[in-house]
Order: sequence, then C-alpha cells, then structure tokens
Amino acid sequence: MDTIPAPKMTRDEVAAYIDEVFPQANAGEKLFTIESVRINGARIRMNYNDRFIRPGGTISGPAMFTLADIAMYVAILAQVGRVPLAVTTSANINFLRRPAPTDMIAEVNLLKMGRRLAVGEVNMMSAGSDDIVAHATATYALPPNAVK
Amino acid sequence: MDTIPAPKMTRDEVAAYIDEVFPQANAGEKLFTIESVRINGARIRMNYNDRFIRPGGTISGPAMFTLADIAMYVAILAQVGRVPLAVTTSANINFLRRPAPTDMIAEVNLLKMGRRLAVGEVNMMSAGSDDIVAHATATYALPPNAVK
Amino acid sequence: MDTIPAPKMTRDEVAAYIDEVFPQANAGEKLFTIESVRINGARIRMNYNDRFIRPGGTISGPAMFTLADIAMYVAILAQVGRVPLAVTTSANINFLRRPAPTDMIAEVNLLKMGRRLAVGEVNMMSAGSDDIVAHATATYALPPNAVK
Amino acid sequence: MDTIPAPKMTRDEVAAYIDEVFPQANAGEKLFTIESVRINGARIRMNYNDRFIRPGGTISGPAMFTLADIAMYVAILAQVGRVPLAVTTSANINFLRRPAPTDMIAEVNLLKMGRRLAVGEVNMMSAGSDDIVAHATATYALPPNAVK
Repeated sequence: MDTIPAPKMTRDEVAAYIDEVFPQANAGEKLFTIESVRINGARIRMNYNDRFIRPGGTISGPAMFTLADIAMYVAILAQVGRVPLAVTTSANINFLRRPAPTDMIAEVNLLKMGRRLAVGEVNMMSAGSDDIVAHATATYALPPNAVK
Repeated sequence: MDTIPAPKMTRDEVAAYIDEVFPQANAGEKLFTIESVRINGARIRMNYNDRFIRPGGTISGPAMFTLADIAMYVAILAQVGRVPLAVTTSANINFLRRPAPTDMIAEVNLLKMGRRLAVGEVNMMSAGSDDIVAHATATYALPPNAVK
Repeated sequence: MDTIPAPKMTRDEVAAYIDEVFPQANAGEKLFTIESVRINGARIRMNYNDRFIRPGGTISGPAMFTLADIAMYVAILAQVGRVPLAVTTSANINFLRRPAPTDMIAEVNLLKMGRRLAVGEVNMMSAGSDDIVAHATATYALPPNAVK
Repeated sequence: MDTIPAPKMTRDEVAAYIDEVFPQANAGEKLFTIESVRINGARIRMNYNDRFIRPGGTISGPAMFTLADIAMYVAILAQVGRVPLAVTTSANINFLRRPAPTDMIAEVNLLKMGRRLAVGEVNMMSAGSDDIVAHATATYALPPNAVK
C-alpha cells in the first residue's frame, strides 16, 4: 500500500488558517467546528443554525454540500499544509435520509492525495447517529508545487 | 419525441410560492430572482452578495451549488405545479472557470420529468458572459401523485 | 441506527440467478466472480481479460464502470432477493490510480436500501493491493413492491 | 466569450489514430463510428450489437458509459490533436429513458478544454429519436504540454 506521510498541520493550525484566509466560512458565527484531523482525513461539525433549514424543517441540501466542501478543504490543508489556492473542480452528492434538526458531522477520507488532484469522500451523519444522511465525493485541483 | 405539456405555473406564481414555503432561500434579502420559466426550463439570477464569496474574491462553489439546486426546484415547480415535498436525491457539479465577482445566471433544462424522478442540467454563467462557469446535473424525487 | 435485515440470497443463489437472467454479463467466459455477499454488501472479482484493456496496458475505465454496476446489482439482489427490473438511474465514478494488469476486486457497501431507491458505493482495488484504484457511487431504482 | 481554435484533426484522422492506439475499442467488429467532429464537439454512433444488451432487451448502462467515454476521447483528440495519454479522471451518468434496441448516437460538447483538464457533456439518443436516453459529464486529465 502507498505510504502516507503524517499530516502537516494540527487541528488548531488548520482552524486558525481558515479563519485567516476564509472568514466567510463562519459568517461571523460559529457555523463549522473542526473536531479532529488525522492522516488523510478529518472530522467536522456543522453547528445547527436556522440558515441551514429548508421546507419541512430539515437541513438543506446546499448546507450539506457546504459542509462536505469545507470538510474536504480541511482534510487537504491538514495533510499537505497551507494551500490557499486549492479549488474544487467537481463534486457529487447523494442525499440518503432526512437529517435530524440538529448538528451534522462530516467524516472525510482522502482517497487520493496527488500532486495535482486530491479526491475524497465525505460521510455525513446527524450528531449522535451512525446512519449516513448524505455521501459526497469531491475533487480539488492543487496549484503547481503545492505538495512537496 | 415525447410531447411535453405546457408549464403549470407562471414566473410570478412560482416566485410567490417559494416565498411562502421556503422564505429561507432569500434569507431576508433578495438573493435569487426568477427571470423566466418555459417548457421544461427556467432562468434564475443569483444577485451578487458578500455571503457568496470565497478566498480569492470569487463566487464560492457552495453558492453555485445553491443556485443550481434552487434553479432546478423552480423549473420543476413551474412545470408540474405546487410540489412542496420534492427533494434532491443526488447532484453532480463541475466547476469550469473562475466566476467574475458579479451576478450569476443559471439556465435549467429538465432532461426528464417523470412521475417519480425529475432530472435536469444547469448551466451557470457570470452575468453578461456566455462562458459556462459551472455545470450541474441534479435529480429530484417527487412525492407520489405529484404529477398528474 | 437503522436495523438492517439479513440478506435474502446466498452467494450461490445470486450467481445462479444472474447466469439465468443476465447471461451477457459473462459473455460466454468467466469474466465476473461473486466472492462473497454480506449484510448490505458484496465482494466481486473481475477476472483479467484482454477485452478490458485500454491503451497503455491498463484496465479501461468502462471495464471498471461495468464492474461497479454489476457489483451494485449483486449486493442489491443479495439483500432484497430477486429483483429482475432494478435499473441504474445514475452513477458517478472517480478514477484514482493506474490499475495493475491483473484481476480487480470490487467491495460494495449499500448506503441506502429503500423501497424505491438503492444507493451504494463501490471501492475497486487491483487484486492483492489495498490501494483504491477507482471509487464509484450508484443509484438503482427498484420496481414497486420489490422490497417487502 | 473565449475564442475557441479550430479542431486539429479531421474525422478520418481521429478514426485512423484510434484504430492505431486503441484497437480494443472496436473489438474486431465495427462497434463505434465517428459521424462528425466540429469545434469542441463530436458525434459518435454505437452500432447495435448483442454484446450491449442487458436483461429486458435494452442497451446496458455500461455500454452507454463506454459510448460516452469514447465520444469524449474523440472530441478531445479532434480538438487538440494526438494525446495518447489522456485519461478519464471522473465521470457522472444519468440514465433517463429506456433505450430502443437499435444504434445509439452520442453528441459531445466540450465545456472546458484547458491545458490540464478537459470537461465535456454527452447527450445520448436512440438513432432516429431526439429524446435523450442518457446524459453524461466526464473529466479527462491531459498530460503536461499536450495542448499547445
């Protein structure tokens, strides 16, 4: 199996970096919390907020997409270090169950961490449950020489 | 070719219905404007707003996903009438070019308008340009008996 | 967590059923082998065959898509029993690494086994390696009353 | 709008090149025919063949995926010239209607033809019909310096 290097940034370093380069992510509130980072992975919490609600009282699809996108970015940053210009090139999301009106947890697994492309999958669950509410895969393009 | 019935709702009827059942879509501001509806299609404008910005000053991926999702919902509503419980089951999005810091336009084409599933594609352009900035496909599940 | 019922068919029952209703899957040769079925999952082998090769000597993308599609069908059949008319409605696949010129293994996990839709993910590896070469998600529509 | 250069290869040049580098595409029969190439697009025919059939007598999903993948490769080759090492990195496909038991036509539109990535969409119809049977999007990675 490919040898995977240790992450280059800790949870707190990633959080500080995102607050610095991407303050809109939290929109002045505490919308997203990085719970942990690990080799090729991360766990992110989306704190329940009225702005995430859609008709019927559940978390909206775009809110879950936002969670998946941020979670991927966190896992990539943790793994390879500061990459300000990583951009999502494509994403696919399946909505599987009605989410509970509570926090959501995203578990990211990076499936590939190449020099030009990073690909990962994100499982999203309502906090306190193991049932997968939504599943996403996403590809990020990395700027040249981002990964050393 | 399949015969496609005329839309069941006008642009203004769809706009009023969304304001009624989904006031969060506009979050108290005028974020999205329905420009037109047509047979199996619609054109939606996402008005430029700071909340859509990501690092680098461009429109964020999640903002474009939100636009695509709302645009699909508008086209389905217009075509089949009031369907409060339509839910997105899956979506795929490709980000192709850096969007300009301005309004974005979404053009939806419904590829299939079945009794249980609606599938469409959405081309997104910066206002005033024909270059496609992002392209999405999405599937909505319709409640039983939604389409008569 | 949702309680998941035991599979309704064994590995040998699924294999016999597919040979009966879908003899083209193996095209007169032994292209695909069901290695095992389990609750909401299955493991399938695609036996190395010249017809799967693409320029450069590796397994082609369409061959991997075929493997993912058959693997999903096997997992659904095993879980819910004979469903002759299940059809794929959408699929997404990411090609991550160059596959070795050898057998490929597909591991399916059903993420949702609903009454109308089944959604699963498929990890594909070259035989003898744990590195994921391709990752797919797919949705199957089930005929009414298929799942009891 | 971006200025798009003229295609670098004609229909016959692309066909000869594919026969040379990828003889497996046609598997000793005449499975795929390039009908035309144009700026950022192409039209491909998949000739009806028993090997494409699935239970119920229709064209299989993997056969349509193969058609989409080859169609994308043809459009890229035509546009940028000989690129032997272009590889599909991801693809998404929606199956919309039951195909007729006849030839299928794929119309490709390249949405982006960048230096590192090409993204396109493919509409697939049964020959003689305008109804879209399947719709795919796919991304190809291009080797460095492939596009001059």
